[in-house]
Amino acid sequence: MSLVSRDPILLTPGPLTTSLATKTAMLRDWGSWDASFNAITIDMRKHLLTIANAHDNHVCVPMQGSGTFSIEAAINTLLPRDSHMLVLINGAYGKRMAKIISMMGRKVSVFETADDVSATAADVERLLESDRSISHVGVIHCETSTGILNPLREIAQIVARHQRSLIIDAMSSFGALEIDAAKIPFDALIAASGKCIEGPPGMGFVLVRKSVLEQSEGNSTSLALDLYDQWSYMEKTTQWRFTPPTHIVAAFHQALIQFVAEGSQAARFARYQKNYEALMAGMEELGLKPFLDPKIQAPIIVTMHAPDSSHYDFKRFYNSVRDKGFILYPGKLTQAETFRIGCIGAIGAEEMRQAVHAIGDALQEMGIKTKNIE
Amino acid sequence: MSLVSRDPILLTPGPLTTSLATKTAMLRDWGSWDASFNAITIDMRKHLLTIANAHDNHVCVPMQGSGTFSIEAAINTLLPRDSHMLVLINGAYGKRMAKIISMMGRKVSVFETADDVSATAADVERLLESDRSISHVGVIHCETSTGILNPLREIAQIVARHQRSLIIDAMSSFGALEIDAAKIPFDALIAASGKCIEGPPGMGFVLVRKSVLEQSEGNSTSLALDLYDQWSYMEKTTQWRFTPPTHIVAAFHQALIQFVAEGSQAARFARYQKNYEALMAGMEELGLKPFLDPKIQAPIIVTMHAPDSSHYDFKRFYNSVRDKGFILYPGKLTQAETFRIGCIGAIGAEEMRQAVHAIGDALQEMGIKTKNIE
Ligand SMILES: Cc1ncc(COP(=O)(O)O)c(C=O)c1O
Ligand SMILES: Cc1ncc(COP(=O)(O)O)c(C=O)c1O
Repeated sequence: MSLVSRDPILLTPGPLTTSLATKTAMLRDWGSWDASFNAITIDMRKHLLTIANAHDNHVCVPMQGSGTFSIEAAINTLLPRDSHMLVLINGAYGKRMAKIISMMGRKVSVFETADDVSATAADVERLLESDRSISHVGVIHCETSTGILNPLREIAQIVARHQRSLIIDAMSSFGALEIDAAKIPFDALIAASGKCIEGPPGMGFVLVRKSVLEQSEGNSTSLALDLYDQWSYMEKTTQWRFTPPTHIVAAFHQALIQFVAEGSQAARFARYQKNYEALMAGMEELGLKPFLDPKIQAPIIVTMHAPDSSHYDFKRFYNSVRDKGFILYPGKLTQAETFRIGCIGAIGAEEMRQAVHAIGDALQEMGIKTKNIE
Repeated sequence: MSLVSRDPILLTPGPLTTSLATKTAMLRDWGSWDASFNAITIDMRKHLLTIANAHDNHVCVPMQGSGTFSIEAAINTLLPRDSHMLVLINGAYGKRMAKIISMMGRKVSVFETADDVSATAADVERLLESDRSISHVGVIHCETSTGILNPLREIAQIVARHQRSLIIDAMSSFGALEIDAAKIPFDALIAASGKCIEGPPGMGFVLVRKSVLEQSEGNSTSLALDLYDQWSYMEKTTQWRFTPPTHIVAAFHQALIQFVAEGSQAARFARYQKNYEALMAGMEELGLKPFLDPKIQAPIIVTMHAPDSSHYDFKRFYNSVRDKGFILYPGKLTQAETFRIGCIGAIGAEEMRQAVHAIGDALQEMGIKTKNIE
């Protein structure tokens, strides 16, 4: 392992690099029952609704645990026991959502497309028309397995027109890509602290339509993941039901303040877009090719084909790039040898260019020819 | 609210006051896939087994979320669907355990005693003999609702003799009170990062008998809370299944290192015992009376009767003591007006004496006579 003491930059889809201001917010112990901590929780919940322009009809319910815990909480709480949920799958997170539903004993159907293909609104319309028993639809906004951007707006509008309930996994997109509740009708949208708001990981949250949540008492088969119970307790007391991750909440709240100061979602998107462009320009120079067509690529995380060389070995490549100060992410595809590079976190285009140089150097050291040195 | 900028001292049963070394461990972003982070996870799991002398037959499985999430994970994973669990209740956490079991649709029976009375080994023996269908027994070691210490060792030995499976909620006792797997047979023991190990809150862990866990694949109706899946993935990859709360894990690991440096459980117990004695001496001077008989009181958290005065109001009292730098905890009893004071956290007898002075001053300011100024 490198003895470089500087912290590496995380080019991963979360945990990601956070700002020092966010991290230093964790240097305090908060009483979870105290008014000063409850004020933070209230403010955090407001900020999150604002980001999705969702104050009119939705409430924000935070939940302890990783993002998956919030997804499961939303599904277990919002689906009556006799529901039937359709999940649109084009990667690992869609598959995970379907697995959650089937493990809890609710009925699930799936519509699966290839990793680089999205379900279309027409697909969804056909499916909803052909099976009237489908009550809920689940979609992954940015499927982080590849970085593909699914057509959320079109799908949301079709689901609404057919009066079904939409549950969105916006884990890796929330805060970076526009999600406006006035244009994208949804009953629940899930994300987490350690993604594009650039907080530390440790909690998730659900933006949920109030009228739907109000009807969902008694649905959950889990106490810990009962979103209704978490919400109603929080409304009554301003406190979390069970011990909150106080340090994470405080840091996430700080990250939200910085998010607003930067210019909110539009500014965050612009920075990530520049990160993405700097990265792709560099990859092109190195002769490395993206897995996805740029037209369906979100500027969140990019899947790259591994170099076509017998010298390539991901583990060695990863270690070498890490020793130069950058943490990459492995690929999640079975059909092609790939690796992933995140464009998100408290970093800018400078860091992306440095990462490109580190990647180029690592490949050279492994004896792999890169285009720019030919 | 006080403008005092010094952080208040938390006299609560978690989150509690952590050391600065523990907090500063959060000033780094870790890649959750990186070997350096995985090494921390591995070391943390080893430390936790050592504390309970449980290396021979148990494994340690950490879980994202608050302590309740780990309790639910243990129950959902270890109980086959046709199990029948008996829960011994003398406070809110026993009730919560029973609620978790019934919500997930498993069979539960309860044996409830008064808040200041423990179930005895003889009670448990009688119950197990009278109902052969009981497969599991749940017990709260220190019932934090009052601070009562339940007779864990005697109960564990009876449960083992009757060949039932014991699940222990040791949330508020683990690390402070001796729990030796060689003397206290258990299948699962649950605690969390933000209690007597003095880490920040945000993760729990289960010490679980390996032979039992190996048999529990497919029991869980929850993906997020599937302890078997978390364990088998971690064994295969050294990684967490879903995004870990990296900053919390790193800080908790630091807290464990400090725990060992202090002298492990025996030293932690001795410090808390001194905290408790300093507190009780002070309370006696103030004429305030504990709810529990000292013989059944753990030196973890103490329930005090509120002063017998018409001037007393918990909210005002709490705010006044907080403005003097100490966060108290409300009572959880319905039959008597009480408040609670924690003896745990990175504090010593000096802090307890200061807290006593603050409490005395607050009562005087409220016009409540205290014994020492009569
Ligand atoms: C789209 C998507 N869904 C779900 C998750 C799961 O989140 P977590 O690992 O926090 O449980 C992730 C994590 O990266 C994600 O990108
Ligand atoms: C004995 C006991 N069990 C369970 C819990 C629940 O833990 P959490 O609030 O972290 O979910 C606590 C919390 O104080 C506790 O003291």
